[in-house]
Amino acid sequence: MKTINAALLCLLTATPAAFAQDAPARTYLSQAEILAASPHGDWRTPDPENLLVMDLAAGRVVIELAPGFAPQHLANVRTLAREHFWDETSIYRVQDNFVVQFGDPNASKKDLAKPLGSAKLHLPAEFQRDAAGLTFTALPDADGWAPQTGFVDGFPVALNPQTGKAWLVHCYGTLGAGRENADDSSRGDELYAIIGHAPRRLDANLSVLGRVLQGMDLLSAVRRGTGPRGGYRTPEERTPIQSIRLASELPESERPKLQVLRTESATFSQMVESMRLRTDAFYKRAPGRVEVCDISVPVR
Amino acid sequence: MKTINAALLCLLTATPAAFAQDAPARTYLSQAEILAASPHGDWRTPDPENLLVMDLAAGRVVIELAPGFAPQHLANVRTLAREHFWDETSIYRVQDNFVVQFGDPNASKKDLAKPLGSAKLHLPAEFQRDAAGLTFTALPDADGWAPQTGFVDGFPVALNPQTGKAWLVHCYGTLGAGRENADDSSRGDELYAIIGHAPRRLDANLSVLGRVLQGMDLLSAVRRGTGPRGGYRTPEERTPIQSIRLASELPESERPKLQVLRTESATFSQMVESMRLRTDAFYKRAPGRVEVCDISVPVR
Repeated sequence: MKTINAALLCLLTATPAAFAQDAPARTYLSQAEILAASPHGDWRTPDPENLLVMDLAAGRVVIELAPGFAPQHLANVRTLAREHFWDETSIYRVQDNFVVQFGDPNASKKDLAKPLGSAKLHLPAEFQRDAAGLTFTALPDADGWAPQTGFVDGFPVALNPQTGKAWLVHCYGTLGAGRENADDSSRGDELYAIIGHAPRRLDANLSVLGRVLQGMDLLSAVRRGTGPRGGYRTPEERTPIQSIRLASELPESERPKLQVLRTESATFSQMVESMRLRTDAFYKRAPGRVEVCDISVPVR
Repeated sequence: MKTINAALLCLLTATPAAFAQDAPARTYLSQAEILAASPHGDWRTPDPENLLVMDLAAGRVVIELAPGFAPQHLANVRTLAREHFWDETSIYRVQDNFVVQFGDPNASKKDLAKPLGSAKLHLPAEFQRDAAGLTFTALPDADGWAPQTGFVDGFPVALNPQTGKAWLVHCYGTLGAGRENADDSSRGDELYAIIGHAPRRLDANLSVLGRVLQGMDLLSAVRRGTGPRGGYRTPEERTPIQSIRLASELPESERPKLQVLRTESATFSQMVESMRLRTDAFYKRAPGRVEVCDISVPVR
């Protein structure tokens, strides 16, 4: 018996330690400390053509669009923003642990739907893109949903080296284009943001457009709809959207002044490592890993 | 070149298909359809000694405690509930994409802290338990954070066969005992629920007590605190808690009437499989997997 047990023990312990272990002794720097020490060059200012500024009675939400993943959808979104399409639309669906969705609540009703102006009425599905040429900062731990995950220019991305394709990941705060069952039925007029546990099953199943940089706390605290799938039973319950503008359309003095940490930077790399090891006084068991949706790329 | 490529292709395709694939053709049953067809025996009525009933101005939240994982904490929680400790306490911290936390906002201030009555002032850390004897319904897909994940009596659980230990998983809606840095500094008077992406790094780092069955939409929509870590800058911003009672302390007519799907049942198994395969009209790419925190065990 002893010999067999020893052999089993050897087999079991020979497995690479992929799971949590005792926290190693080292000087711990918190995320705040790491960011405070970061060089200015490790931060970037988003292009105002890629920033959507949404004004609600409760405050302002700023969204960064991810160029190159769904370019035709982004072109439509910019057109809609320039033509003030979302003025007087609303947040019309809030489903707990899932999405907040907004736009024209009558979009699917032919006689009532708000015209899309110059925006295209039909777009192709833009679920995945070629990965070639992307500056992809890979995370070290296995993901489970995709062969590789990491970041491209501050956006969470999954990558399949076999197919050579990449796609944006549905993390908390990810913004995507709502669609019907047909894969080419989204136009970028109906948008959703994730407000719960990252629904990775949606990855590469929708055209994903970007992520919320600021004001996520406003979207996530909207009262949940009590109708089917989080819709509201009465129009009065919807949260009005005053406007959504491209930052480039705003006078410079009114544009959001913010920077995003570069995900190809040493600072980001250091931050990820400190998250993996968590050697602060609170953690009794260092996680030893991090997943892509654990990481909210810092904005200042 | 051709020979080498063929060999590489063979190697690459020999890897078990762990990732998404084309949705196989089969009759799809939605979760609603699966549950509607379920036999009564696949549902259980929670023990009223394990149900916490929290009343807020906005409505009622029902929490099920998980016996056997943190029994000393549960004993303290039941004492506190019986002695009406939480009457006139509050939700004093809401940190976006993380937690809502509640109890006595002055708990750490010696002269102001509300007395704990008969509840114990000190408890041991109850982060993990022996897995022996648990009815563990394992999920088929690899988790990444733990060797095995699955469910025990409707609660998400992780298990390490090497150590023979199990612990409750921090999913959306999980309820745990807030603590200071010392691992034995929680008493079950300060409680938190997860309101964002599952923070798996917390697993086996805190004493976890149960999960929210109903009213999660009330907790998750509370305005976020603008102070450090989601605290509020002024007491007026906190959400008052009218009371937290054990269901067993309420007159039978006032107790929540609900049932939870048995996670050892065939219905649950069927539901998990339909989530893994997602062969409905919306999904163009079946995920082919599910993770423990994707699953909210049904309550009716």
